[in-house]
Amino acid sequence: MAVKQYINPAKTSWESILTRPSIEQASLDATIASVVANVETKGDKALIEYAEKFDGVRLTSLTVSAEAIEEAKSLVDAKLANAIKLAYNNIYAFHQNQVVEESTVETTSGVKCWRKSVAIDKVGLYIPGGTAPLFSTVLMLAIPANIAGCKEVVLCTPPNKEGKIHPAILFAAQLCGVKTLIKAGGSQAISAMALGTESVPAVYKIFGPGNQYVTAAKQYVQKFGVAIDMPAGPSEVAVIADETANAAFVASDLLSQAEHGADSQVILFATDVRVVEKVQTEVVKQLAVLPRK
Amino acid sequence: MAVKQYINPAKTSWESILTRPSIEQASLDATIASVVANVETKGDKALIEYAEKFDGVRLTSLTVSAEAIEEAKSLVDAKLANAIKLAYNNIYAFHQNQVVEESTVETTSGVKCWRKSVAIDKVGLYIPGGTAPLFSTVLMLAIPANIAGCKEVVLCTPPNKEGKIHPAILFAAQLCGVKTLIKAGGSQAISAMALGTESVPAVYKIFGPGNQYVTAAKQYVQKFGVAIDMPAGPSEVAVIADETANAAFVASDLLSQAEHGADSQVILFATDVRVVEKVQTEVVKQLAVLPRK
Repeated sequence: MAVKQYINPAKTSWESILTRPSIEQASLDATIASVVANVETKGDKALIEYAEKFDGVRLTSLTVSAEAIEEAKSLVDAKLANAIKLAYNNIYAFHQNQVVEESTVETTSGVKCWRKSVAIDKVGLYIPGGTAPLFSTVLMLAIPANIAGCKEVVLCTPPNKEGKIHPAILFAAQLCGVKTLIKAGGSQAISAMALGTESVPAVYKIFGPGNQYVTAAKQYVQKFGVAIDMPAGPSEVAVIADETANAAFVASDLLSQAEHGADSQVILFATDVRVVEKVQTEVVKQLAVLPRK
Repeated sequence: MAVKQYINPAKTSWESILTRPSIEQASLDATIASVVANVETKGDKALIEYAEKFDGVRLTSLTVSAEAIEEAKSLVDAKLANAIKLAYNNIYAFHQNQVVEESTVETTSGVKCWRKSVAIDKVGLYIPGGTAPLFSTVLMLAIPANIAGCKEVVLCTPPNKEGKIHPAILFAAQLCGVKTLIKAGGSQAISAMALGTESVPAVYKIFGPGNQYVTAAKQYVQKFGVAIDMPAGPSEVAVIADETANAAFVASDLLSQAEHGADSQVILFATDVRVVEKVQTEVVKQLAVLPRK
């Protein structure tokens, strides 16, 4: 991880310091259009072909069976399982706190106005694959869906070369009560959730992060009337720390986003150069024990 | 206005009853791409050329002067001015009520979590032109921007054939404290707010309804990192009314969206066929005195 340090940089230099690597998305459009058309025409068959091409596995079924979910519980070691449960409780508490009943305004005598949150019936959650099993993303997407009361939650994530989903993903999904788990990744998974296939129910809104193909596909399928959370690009996080900050927490927060890829942007603003030093020391210490340095 | 009536339709027919006229957006993409490229390269000059082409006016300036805004106050008749002020107060009261401070959750000892709303520094508001001066849209977009505390509010709306903006639009904008008013419409206005020109400041998020070109442009400019409120398509409204409903209010609500265009979808669910009859009578009555029947 390359860390650059700036002490009191001039305001005129802020923009260039904060410039992110830009990604040319226009050239993606043709690729995305062909994937969407393929999934629309061939349904499950297209997803199976893409899994063979991109994930290197010949799938016999796109769905994860109830048995496979059960098996995952025994494959996750106790320490990880407890950490996932702790995260579940924390994330649940955070989102539960967002359930607020707004008060009513009577703008004109007899005309009462208020906003009412209504759960989206069918939502699709995309969990990226790659080297890191993003069970945290499962929790962060499926818990709010549960609290809101979404009736159908479809989760898509790419399979590994054995055609399986990482047990930690399955464990988190099962904790959140997700019933429909699809082995599909990339823009083909987004297309499937937007249009529906034999195995994948079409949803009304798609959530979740992803690489540039996933992001471009999410933007593309809006044309079919499907909503998306946002065109979530590469990760970024900014931490503001003063001299009272816990350097270990700050380092963990920075690393949690930096791990997403080389195009992640991770920024620490510190009011004291000693904080920067302490955090750097923590980053080195934590990196030493992380599998994805 | 064609009204179709269904009494207790079978559930199997609901989907076809509710099907909306679909608009082929794929073919728009090339047009939008060329408009965006043109505005990017030529700036104000492109906007002036498009105004000549689409709005039929040769503009000498894209901005509305402080004098023109003052003049508008005297051009709006007292009755309309009072109606706009009443709407302003009602909309303000509604949105002010949305300002809520969320409580804090302590997920782990020492880790306090909360959400904080932060105003977007620069926002762009698009107000469609056409035969109806949508001063209501000005109020509905600019009031929340004010309450949130947005520092810069840019408003774009197409000029008429005299190169002017309808006084009611200017009056509403002035009530809301909008300082930057640009005479530009369509996808070129969206491009300008996304990329910036000599006269139009680039903004971080674009809000507002529009025709299919405006909607496609809003979707397109997301590629440049600009956020949009949503791909607001043709209008739709659903009113649920029981026997206690005020038929005049219901009719007004239905007509308010139906006026947006032939592709608007306007639905009344009534628990009693007599309500439907009363509303229909009101619709006919109100239509008779509306300029845009």
